Amino acid sequence: MADFRPKARRPRGFVDRRGRDLAAERAIVDAVLKVYEAWGFERLETSAFEYADALGKFLPDQDRPNEGVFALQDDDEQWMALRYDLTAPLARFVAENFDALPKPYRRCAAGPVWRNEKPGPGRFREFWQCDADTVGSASPAADAEMIAMACAALEAAGVKQGAYAIKINTRRVLNEILEVAGVVDPKQKLGVLRALDKFDRLGFAGVQLLLGPGRKDDSGDFTKGAGLSDAAIEQIMSYLVRGSAQGRDSFLDMIGEVANVDDLRGISAVLKSLGIGDRQASFDLSIIRGLEYYTGAVFEAQLVGGDGASFGSVGGGGRYDDLVSRFKGQPIPATGFSVGVSRLAAALAAQRDAAAADPLVVVLPFDGAAIAQCFGYAAQLRGAGHRAEVYLGGSGPKAQLKYADKRDAVVAVIVGGDELAGRSVTLKNLRAGAELAARAADREAYEKGREDVQITVPEGEMIAHVRRMTAPV
Amino acid sequence: MADFRPKARRPRGFVDRRGRDLAAERAIVDAVLKVYEAWGFERLETSAFEYADALGKFLPDQDRPNEGVFALQDDDEQWMALRYDLTAPLARFVAENFDALPKPYRRCAAGPVWRNEKPGPGRFREFWQCDADTVGSASPAADAEMIAMACAALEAAGVKQGAYAIKINTRRVLNEILEVAGVVDPKQKLGVLRALDKFDRLGFAGVQLLLGPGRKDDSGDFTKGAGLSDAAIEQIMSYLVRGSAQGRDSFLDMIGEVANVDDLRGISAVLKSLGIGDRQASFDLSIIRGLEYYTGAVFEAQLVGGDGASFGSVGGGGRYDDLVSRFKGQPIPATGFSVGVSRLAAALAAQRDAAAADPLVVVLPFDGAAIAQCFGYAAQLRGAGHRAEVYLGGSGPKAQLKYADKRDAVVAVIVGGDELAGRSVTLKNLRAGAELAARAADREAYEKGREDVQITVPEGEMIAHVRRMTAPV
Repeated sequence: MADFRPKARRPRGFVDRRGRDLAAERAIVDAVLKVYEAWGFERLETSAFEYADALGKFLPDQDRPNEGVFALQDDDEQWMALRYDLTAPLARFVAENFDALPKPYRRCAAGPVWRNEKPGPGRFREFWQCDADTVGSASPAADAEMIAMACAALEAAGVKQGAYAIKINTRRVLNEILEVAGVVDPKQKLGVLRALDKFDRLGFAGVQLLLGPGRKDDSGDFTKGAGLSDAAIEQIMSYLVRGSAQGRDSFLDMIGEVANVDDLRGISAVLKSLGIGDRQASFDLSIIRGLEYYTGAVFEAQLVGGDGASFGSVGGGGRYDDLVSRFKGQPIPATGFSVGVSRLAAALAAQRDAAAADPLVVVLPFDGAAIAQCFGYAAQLRGAGHRAEVYLGGSGPKAQLKYADKRDAVVAVIVGGDELAGRSVTLKNLRAGAELAARAADREAYEKGREDVQITVPEGEMIAHVRRMTAPV
Repeated sequence: MADFRPKARRPRGFVDRRGRDLAAERAIVDAVLKVYEAWGFERLETSAFEYADALGKFLPDQDRPNEGVFALQDDDEQWMALRYDLTAPLARFVAENFDALPKPYRRCAAGPVWRNEKPGPGRFREFWQCDADTVGSASPAADAEMIAMACAALEAAGVKQGAYAIKINTRRVLNEILEVAGVVDPKQKLGVLRALDKFDRLGFAGVQLLLGPGRKDDSGDFTKGAGLSDAAIEQIMSYLVRGSAQGRDSFLDMIGEVANVDDLRGISAVLKSLGIGDRQASFDLSIIRGLEYYTGAVFEAQLVGGDGASFGSVGGGGRYDDLVSRFKGQPIPATGFSVGVSRLAAALAAQRDAAAADPLVVVLPFDGAAIAQCFGYAAQLRGAGHRAEVYLGGSGPKAQLKYADKRDAVVAVIVGGDELAGRSVTLKNLRAGAELAARAADREAYEKGREDVQITVPEGEMIAHVRRMTAPV
């Protein structure tokens, strides 16, 4: 082994995350879980592995599990796979513990999931999900609760009211509208739904082509259309336009003339009693999501601008009545919501105030004999509520100050020979120092400003000066 | 697929964790990470997978990675394995990003690790670790910082001062003492260390036998001893006894006569400046830990009784200078500490006050028409700081109350037809109800007590009554 020196590299498609970005993601997960728990959702943590057949990825006529998951054979030859989401393990857990669970069963969970996909830019093989699910209630109230809780979760994560919108749709109503427009063939219906699903990306004109003869994209590739008549397209599109540009009540009145909207009415009533207005949650017939997966209401959380224009999805969910039933052989209704942690973190990062991060104080033993003293100062600083650390390397003053910069510290507490002898500390305001260097017009202003940047004080006054230097600017 | 109904079961050796137990473990991790971060340790999250050779588990002369890890071959035929601890990925990360990192580099991390071991009672194949490490400092101050921070972390997790002790030892001092006692042969030294490592389990008498001729255990199995002379055993044991029964300064004075204790002196000085007394951290020559792994100081966190007797280890760490060096081919010193999350949680669970858990309020729509109203009440309750949920099933009053019991709720808010008509709610104090049923001596006392248990009030007074009923008893 002595001769074998491995190359340090992380596996393809995986990332290391650290510092502020990681802290931002974890803060979102913590805030969202706290909301889920306040709403009575019990935390559950299943292990990373499930039996491949329980995940639903096992094809009985093949030796190896399906693609898309990381799978291996246990020593008793059973195939296990890493979970690809948090819902499949929930279904297994509920089926396994059905009799002992309170019903309906509300659970929340957060953790990494793994997808064995070809790595690509921005496509990761491990990422976090943060879910809430209610198993065992077919009531529209359960869906409404998900939607209202999604609003509360987004707000707890730092998204302001007015900056997000939950869009609600249901497969059944869409089906009835298609039938009114004369689309009854299941295959043609699926084609129409696939076309509508591209609304975000292609807009009206593109979807219209896909509903009719078909569409050629910029690269010249042709996608066959659903082949609807102009009249049918016109009718569907008009519902789509009108169905997404009004309050919930008007929507229900309009669509209620051509389809059964009882469950949507039920959802809207509960939303109202939970104080969720039209700007927070509205119906939108263009929301499709997981055609093979969802069986009823679907919802999508979007970040929106002041004009209501969508900046993209940061979460979603819906009703999936088949997942637990697969194990039990009896119908078990379920509904859930999942926050897109990484997407939401990225969206919030743009708004985040760097100054809001917990400022760090670094204590520098310019004189090596000062190390124990420095640890005492660091303990005092932590006692006063600061993040504080001592430089532990063996290098000199210049390298120590460079270290403080690399650590993004706001204040350096310097303890050299003079300070040690005089029981004093030299405080360097690193934030002000950087600003001064960038700003000071002439030498005189610079020299004057330097007094604000660096100061030597008795050790008893350290905390007061550090508090001043770390105060929000 | 329709005919294939998988059996719901979790893989062998893995557990599902939920509710209070899970919350207790997560609370420990959160508290410990918060301390690590306050001490300037930056959070790092690496992925679950590492290349097997980077984990150090790959034997170059074999096709398959070593036992003990969960490994699989990626589609480019490289072997990947799930991490078995958080330190090996840290070593890979540091080696990969060496030039860009501040040095010394302090990092903390928490997450699951996986061991491919034969499942057994209490032996799990997935569990959490919560680590802090300093890479790039050979200074005893870095070890002292680990020890002092371990004290702060244990206290933040809920262990009171006096209820834990960090025991410190160093391989080098132990070596020198063995040499003073005439043990110089490396193989014999290893035998002695292995014997000393069994101190916790076998006590003095057992260790004495293992240092000498050998020991037969209760089942009749014989373990060969290290074959030391009675005089050598006497000498070693006397250091062991005296070395673990005194303050740090007396220990250094005594052991300093026969061995070089400069680094232990350095550790003790920094501990002193950080306010860590002898009861919190002391030297103990019987602490061995990871013979093949640690290269210098080792420390072990133990829970102790009022008399100082150990209840077992809840964490540990030490100096491991070879791990990063393996990649870089140059010496890189490192030291770290890891909290045994599950063990600590189990130990604290015994002391935990069940009433301290966040009480849950369940709102029960005895009349189905009250569902929207119930959601409004739940929102009001959450607004007042309570955990609150609405029963979402379709069953009647009796099943609803049973649900509230299963959910461990403290108060049930009942909304039937009368309440709905009168804009009132019926509050049932489930905790008091259970106590009353257990306690009330006669029918009269029971009837009188019932008034405290159940009360109907105008909806405007709901919050005040719930606050009273959920107040700590």
